[in-house]
Amino acid sequence: MTETVDPTRWVCPRPLRDHSAVMLGHGGGGVLSGELVEHLFLPAFAAAPDDARMPAGALADSAVLEVGGVRLAFSTDSYVVRPLFFPGGSIGELAVHGTINDLACSGAVPVALSAGFILEEGLDLEVLGRVAEAMGRAAARAGVRLVTGDTKVVERGLADGLYVNTSGIGVVPPGVDIRPERARPGDRVLVSGPIGEHGVAVLSVRENLEFGGDVRSDTAALHGMVAAMLAAAPGGVHALRDPTRGGLATTLCEIAAASGTGVEFTESAVPVPPVVEAACAFLGLDPLHVANEGKIVAFVAPDEADAALAAMRAHPAGHEAAIIGTVTADHPGLVVARTAFGTTRVVDRPLGEQLPRIC
Amino acid sequence: MTETVDPTRWVCPRPLRDHSAVMLGHGGGGVLSGELVEHLFLPAFAAAPDDARMPAGALADSAVLEVGGVRLAFSTDSYVVRPLFFPGGSIGELAVHGTINDLACSGAVPVALSAGFILEEGLDLEVLGRVAEAMGRAAARAGVRLVTGDTKVVERGLADGLYVNTSGIGVVPPGVDIRPERARPGDRVLVSGPIGEHGVAVLSVRENLEFGGDVRSDTAALHGMVAAMLAAAPGGVHALRDPTRGGLATTLCEIAAASGTGVEFTESAVPVPPVVEAACAFLGLDPLHVANEGKIVAFVAPDEADAALAAMRAHPAGHEAAIIGTVTADHPGLVVARTAFGTTRVVDRPLGEQLPRIC
Repeated sequence: MTETVDPTRWVCPRPLRDHSAVMLGHGGGGVLSGELVEHLFLPAFAAAPDDARMPAGALADSAVLEVGGVRLAFSTDSYVVRPLFFPGGSIGELAVHGTINDLACSGAVPVALSAGFILEEGLDLEVLGRVAEAMGRAAARAGVRLVTGDTKVVERGLADGLYVNTSGIGVVPPGVDIRPERARPGDRVLVSGPIGEHGVAVLSVRENLEFGGDVRSDTAALHGMVAAMLAAAPGGVHALRDPTRGGLATTLCEIAAASGTGVEFTESAVPVPPVVEAACAFLGLDPLHVANEGKIVAFVAPDEADAALAAMRAHPAGHEAAIIGTVTADHPGLVVARTAFGTTRVVDRPLGEQLPRIC
Repeated sequence: MTETVDPTRWVCPRPLRDHSAVMLGHGGGGVLSGELVEHLFLPAFAAAPDDARMPAGALADSAVLEVGGVRLAFSTDSYVVRPLFFPGGSIGELAVHGTINDLACSGAVPVALSAGFILEEGLDLEVLGRVAEAMGRAAARAGVRLVTGDTKVVERGLADGLYVNTSGIGVVPPGVDIRPERARPGDRVLVSGPIGEHGVAVLSVRENLEFGGDVRSDTAALHGMVAAMLAAAPGGVHALRDPTRGGLATTLCEIAAASGTGVEFTESAVPVPPVVEAACAFLGLDPLHVANEGKIVAFVAPDEADAALAAMRAHPAGHEAAIIGTVTADHPGLVVARTAFGTTRVVDRPLGEQLPRIC
């Protein structure tokens, strides 16, 4: 790709690692992704992370901004998963549920979604039709409307069938203030169910592997679960995030970093399905790094943690929810796991892309 | 691309033309694009065009919906222009201005934008940096914030450098009701300046052509112009649209169809720069079909048309605004041009893609 650019040398406002080109890892949700956002996008968009005018969560999951007296959550995600269809769903469900969940993690009630398609010339219209229908069904089930859209077509070979962006808006109810920064020492860390299913399901079809068990993507809309938690534990829900790219480990690290706290959790308390464990052992992956598309991690005040857990478990997608750990004032920014051997280990974000194009 | 889909045969809810695969023309903003929206997306999203719950303009430019007592405009557009940089701008300015203009065409005051990048592995980070900076500058100039974002990376060869989606939200002031359906007989048709510059500028670098003159993209944010028109002609502005893909002809045809009226205009009244005329003659294009990225077409009540025209002309991007025609009750849905020879001809939308990847 040759591009004519301004002949003056461009310099990244904050130096990036030793590389000059985009790598797959820049899309992995890990360290490289974070660096791209903080060193390149934020300065370019003239809104440094310490800019007080920057809405909470800006350039991360969803931004919350006051518009005409209403607190709106606004979020965007592009979906490039390969293949387009996998056990348990398709890019269509992912695109609807993923953006709904980003809104829900601000405590918002999702209202409307947009859909922006980039299609590859030659794509079978049947494939497009099935994806669009999956989106329509997922939105209807979630009670959210697809209200505006756009379609672009690029020449054969310049996309991979189809990519789709969904953006979403939701309303944050009065009094609700859920942000990664709000996690505090003493909070309990909850996860809404077994981890790793989405990543392993996609890999199983992509690599044509059998893992000795049925594994399906957990893709699901979780705004109902969040609403139930907020009703059950009013004021106690401090931070929420859906552990997608980069998995549970990345989510815990991000919230520890954002809130300046430490996180301690017990490995054996994290629900990992046997098939995910087997697949990860076979592929050399850490289940804590594998993407989920229908789970929520919650940081909840200790006296309301049981009520929030009960609300999670009462939701169809949360039967196996568990309390896995605690927030501590020790080791700010660090996430520490207690292993089955009674030792501890530091849990880190993956550097780049463990599983490219997982969502 | 091979995909595993449900083995039952998929049938498009409303038959498409004789083709089973996506063609470049499906992204051209013309007849094929419209068919894809009406026959495939709308039924799939379970919101037929005659569905009263469907917000005005849904799946077209921007949707207007009431959220918590505020009327919000919500719009999305993906940008795939090739090359990324061209005389007068880049994909960055286009992505910011384009979505702002879609919001403005609902009469909304734009508030915030999202940015969703799809990057090709191997893209020079300098290119990405320059595009992001162009977006930041364009947003700052327009007084609109980029508040949330997402980055995905696909393998080398599965994109063309970068694609970007912007979605936007804006507030529609009380009393403002601007929709294509509201054009009515007697309305004057205004265009805010010379047409065809964006398309010809992009083509000139893409095909390495010289057209005997300097031609630059007209990319510009026009929400200020719209606000001035609404102040100058309160209640008189019935319909607005930015004539991007498919050009002025497509915009006129779409508004005629949506409002069930006819449009008559005088060819010689349409401002066409000599360089655009020369380029179109050389390339066999109709200037009426060439994309613009900084123009607005307005349908205004006759007694307020002069005031609206004066407001357009007072704006830096509207000095050459002109009244080009009139809405008529005759020939509903048809657009008719009066030629320089005193004859008339029917003006139609292009079928598919005249200039692929122009925005």
